[in-house]
Amino acid sequence: MVVELISVGTELLLGNIINTNAAYLSEECANLGLSCYYQTVVGDNEERITQTLQLALSRADIVIMGGGLGPTPDDLTKEVAAKVCNKKLFLDEKAKKDIEDYFAKKNVTIPDNNWKQALIPEDSVVLYNANGTAPGVIIEYGTQKVILLPGPPNELKPMFENQVKPYINELMPSIILSKTVKICGIGESAVAKEIDDLIKDQTNPTIATYAKTGEVHLRVTAKADSEVEAKKLIKPMIKDIKERFGNAIYTTDVDTSLEMIIAELLIANELTLATVESCTGGLLAGRIINVPGVSETYKSGYVTYSNKAKRKCVGVKKSSLEKYGAVSEQVAKEMAIGAHDVCKADVVISTTGIAGPDGGTAEKPVGLVYIGCYVCGKTTVKEYHFNGNRAKVRESTVAAALTLLRECLLEYFSENTFGKNKE
Amino acid sequence: MVVELISVGTELLLGNIINTNAAYLSEECANLGLSCYYQTVVGDNEERITQTLQLALSRADIVIMGGGLGPTPDDLTKEVAAKVCNKKLFLDEKAKKDIEDYFAKKNVTIPDNNWKQALIPEDSVVLYNANGTAPGVIIEYGTQKVILLPGPPNELKPMFENQVKPYINELMPSIILSKTVKICGIGESAVAKEIDDLIKDQTNPTIATYAKTGEVHLRVTAKADSEVEAKKLIKPMIKDIKERFGNAIYTTDVDTSLEMIIAELLIANELTLATVESCTGGLLAGRIINVPGVSETYKSGYVTYSNKAKRKCVGVKKSSLEKYGAVSEQVAKEMAIGAHDVCKADVVISTTGIAGPDGGTAEKPVGLVYIGCYVCGKTTVKEYHFNGNRAKVRESTVAAALTLLRECLLEYFSENTFGKNKE
Repeated sequence: MVVELISVGTELLLGNIINTNAAYLSEECANLGLSCYYQTVVGDNEERITQTLQLALSRADIVIMGGGLGPTPDDLTKEVAAKVCNKKLFLDEKAKKDIEDYFAKKNVTIPDNNWKQALIPEDSVVLYNANGTAPGVIIEYGTQKVILLPGPPNELKPMFENQVKPYINELMPSIILSKTVKICGIGESAVAKEIDDLIKDQTNPTIATYAKTGEVHLRVTAKADSEVEAKKLIKPMIKDIKERFGNAIYTTDVDTSLEMIIAELLIANELTLATVESCTGGLLAGRIINVPGVSETYKSGYVTYSNKAKRKCVGVKKSSLEKYGAVSEQVAKEMAIGAHDVCKADVVISTTGIAGPDGGTAEKPVGLVYIGCYVCGKTTVKEYHFNGNRAKVRESTVAAALTLLRECLLEYFSENTFGKNKE
Repeated sequence: MVVELISVGTELLLGNIINTNAAYLSEECANLGLSCYYQTVVGDNEERITQTLQLALSRADIVIMGGGLGPTPDDLTKEVAAKVCNKKLFLDEKAKKDIEDYFAKKNVTIPDNNWKQALIPEDSVVLYNANGTAPGVIIEYGTQKVILLPGPPNELKPMFENQVKPYINELMPSIILSKTVKICGIGESAVAKEIDDLIKDQTNPTIATYAKTGEVHLRVTAKADSEVEAKKLIKPMIKDIKERFGNAIYTTDVDTSLEMIIAELLIANELTLATVESCTGGLLAGRIINVPGVSETYKSGYVTYSNKAKRKCVGVKKSSLEKYGAVSEQVAKEMAIGAHDVCKADVVISTTGIAGPDGGTAEKPVGLVYIGCYVCGKTTVKEYHFNGNRAKVRESTVAAALTLLRECLLEYFSENTFGKNKE
């Protein structure tokens, strides 16, 4: 079955935003077993959206359009799609109610133009939106489907995941099943080299690599007549991959993140955690607190960006800052131990580095980072060199800190038989 | 003059990589004054590349194709473009020499298939490649131009910047100039309604709205024969927009963020800042520390996600937690004042809320957030109701906290004439 993607939005044509939706949808569609031959980006223009949709319908079974469902007059996707498919728009009461509730919750009177978001083409499945005011729509146009999704990624992704995926799965003649293996602490090239033979020989299941910051995900996908058969095809390859990468694999569940695994490890072993951050300045805590229920293990966090804060909050020695500098193995170590002393957390992770753009020297260039990890009395510090701009260096540091934290925890559990749950 | 972008590569259709080239080229083309109405992504397939290029040539003056110039048999862009434009390929001696030099430098023997990279269509400008083996090409096809660029961003970008830009600039009859107005604390629909007349009547300059979390950006774009004239066209519309939105506009500089403005306000007035976060758990500090040089004003940050941390780190009263709950006006207030007491920052911003998915009740639903702001003795607390999942509620809280912080600072400056820099 052939799918075609259309992203609507002048902001994409002007380069104001990067089209991450297209990458997400492409990956998900490939995963569902759909073939995608074209993606198009078109601006907020009735004639051009019309032409683009008509062309897509001339060559695809399913057309997915993202963006242009907002309340403003230049949001045209739904109106154009309804016209191209010869469907009338009518007011959907539940969508209207959702908009009322959305604004009531915000204590804001509803702008007049928001009502048009509750208009839905006839013969459609409405995709109610828990994360915004624009409902999505699946227009059933003969045997073809035109799927309209809101542009903001935090609305588009859950809507695709929870509502569109099951819908498309129903349409597919054979079952496609995927399993994702998530690897941390090994670079993409090294991972690709390790499974070079698997990639070259792939037929069914197939294998694909996806590079994420600090992680590589491998997706193994099988096509079969039943779920049982697909699982049977996938199993030996997952086993093979597990043997090749061992502990570097932190999960084989697509919805599980590295921070979730770490929270689980800590909670299961009744260990508490604290963070003390310089260059990441809160982003590491922010990612750990992504995990619902993490308050069971997370004690407290300190953002000690200035030298003064490093001294006052977590007792880094003035002499160490002067002798080694704030970005040093010694200071990363003192931050971790100091945070433990202050809040008595069993485990502490600390970051200090030069995120740039300024502050680099020949000896300590931009991208130099030290990460410290204190686990029940033992402190490990590692040195890293990251590439990219300020945001990229900080993001890489967060990923590396989580990887180091997991490594140190696993090491601690393997050395200490009193750990309650060991891997 | 109309440009169209074609990205060639099956890896884009599979979602293995994000199309950052398209965003880069779009922005650069908009800056050059080119109008871009369509972007297409197509796989490594001769027939489909042919159709896509033919369609683009039917509606654009300049077609830019990125990718598919590599040495492997599935790299087809140059061969297809030459065929579509009826140009023969011939061996370019300098391109051949470049390839020889490239491999000599690496001490590697030249793979046979690399020679095809030195083949160039007749009637072309060759864009020699300092960063790889694939030269780019500008095919002059009557009055139209087909520009072929290598796919790797570190080859494409310098080639566009140094060779394509000057070439296109020569072709352009008029200047395009844009100015961005950034608004915080007002929703997209309300902003759109306020400038409904401007959007409806737009000719030159044009006006467009872009929704960001907690912000709306307006872009005003003028076309003229000279920069001076373009500025003259933009000026009255910016003045009009400023009158309509007043203080809600935080900058008219495209490269300036809300956190940069706040850091500037604090530094100029010699005020120090601290953060104390519950539901945002570090993300607010993380965003403030996006600003290089913020250590001048940022004292320290506390992540007090648990009740215990709220009491221990910043002295929130046990009785308040019991009487009002952790998510309450009172606790937001005590967090802000308490952080001030601990670290003596002049300004403190605090967040506490229910990010979900669990923890909500009928009385205190998921999305309920209190943000406190202490400025030199006075504390303001506001109540918010945000929609969406955990990540969205946290992101909205960060944006609202920055907006409230700026509001409170502006109010403080307007009430206190001893402020050094007043807006």
